[in-house]
Amino acid sequence: MRQKKAISDAVIERLPLYYRDLLLLQDAGIDIISSEKLGERLGITPEQIRKDLTCFGAFGKKGVGYYVSELCQQIVEIIGLQQHWKIGIAGIGHLGWALANYKTFGRLGFRTMGLFDVDHRIIGQNVGGVVVTPISEMEEVVRREGIQIGIITTPAAVAQQVADQMVAAGIKGILSFAPLRLNVPDRIFVFREDLSIGLSRISYYLTNKPQE
Amino acid sequence: MRQKKAISDAVIERLPLYYRDLLLLQDAGIDIISSEKLGERLGITPEQIRKDLTCFGAFGKKGVGYYVSELCQQIVEIIGLQQHWKIGIAGIGHLGWALANYKTFGRLGFRTMGLFDVDHRIIGQNVGGVVVTPISEMEEVVRREGIQIGIITTPAAVAQQVADQMVAAGIKGILSFAPLRLNVPDRIFVFREDLSIGLSRISYYLTNKPQE
Repeated sequence: MRQKKAISDAVIERLPLYYRDLLLLQDAGIDIISSEKLGERLGITPEQIRKDLTCFGAFGKKGVGYYVSELCQQIVEIIGLQQHWKIGIAGIGHLGWALANYKTFGRLGFRTMGLFDVDHRIIGQNVGGVVVTPISEMEEVVRREGIQIGIITTPAAVAQQVADQMVAAGIKGILSFAPLRLNVPDRIFVFREDLSIGLSRISYYLTNKPQE
Repeated sequence: MRQKKAISDAVIERLPLYYRDLLLLQDAGIDIISSEKLGERLGITPEQIRKDLTCFGAFGKKGVGYYVSELCQQIVEIIGLQQHWKIGIAGIGHLGWALANYKTFGRLGFRTMGLFDVDHRIIGQNVGGVVVTPISEMEEVVRREGIQIGIITTPAAVAQQVADQMVAAGIKGILSFAPLRLNVPDRIFVFREDLSIGLSRISYYLTNKPQE
């Protein structure tokens, strides 16, 4: 049973977009923003924004807008970003390397505490401020650093084995880029990222768009 | 006005997952699959699968399952993958490099016809079978090769400029990894990919999961 009213996945997916833009507004010294302005910046309709934010009780001030810092704080609490989750990335190929340097993770409060690989040309390198350690030491590093979320960017063939190691080390959530279903205990939350979905959506829209 | 009944974004996002798994089944010589089995492989409930597939008229055979090759063909047509879209990637840093080597794109029928960068250490390199050309030649290559979809993996600061060049060259759809809204004409379909959404969802679920 959930403690709070469940919020739909679609809303949960838009919240980080709102949050990141609100941080930019905050940096620019803007205190209040209307749903129209926010919608314009994000390419989302103001109606959708109002509906999303109503889900968790952010009403703003009628005719004026939302208080930027207040809204930021509410989103942080809803998503749980105040925890400053510690993450570890297994598989420091090009994708893992890109993620290790992805500034938005830090902006959202995620802290990269471990990078793991099997390749001796990569082990020992400093990537975005963290030194790559052998994957054989992952369990030890996860426990020592208190890493809670693991990202899998390894080849598909070893993804299950890496997930097993992460689970054994006490990781609670896994973001996987491997194109297969991972078998993990029910208590572990797995989110599978798929880089081909965006292209497929574009293909769908270009195929089905209205004829002019 | 759309020609066909609009299918929800959530369904459109699941179709490529079904498709990729059906191709694996096809490779393994499996002709028929039940929604239960497919659901088990994908971590999606059989009810959801049946509901999704009913959207576009794939009913399968009651008590038996779906014909794998027939279903593949239907999904290809729904998503529009029979077009074998030609894609170009601008920004061959680690993320662009990873995408240029991402096998699923090819499996879905997307063909990478151009890779573009400004860095002289990268220009001229062969990445996944395509030689990186200077971004100043992008318009020429897009026209010559008939590239229809562009992927932007450049730094945010130049993403709008790159999008402008893509539009000028006649690209119809853009997949952007840049953390900002691109201003493009209405006829261009833009899909913004955000690698931080998966982590935010994990954070949300770990924060709000039922207490045991």
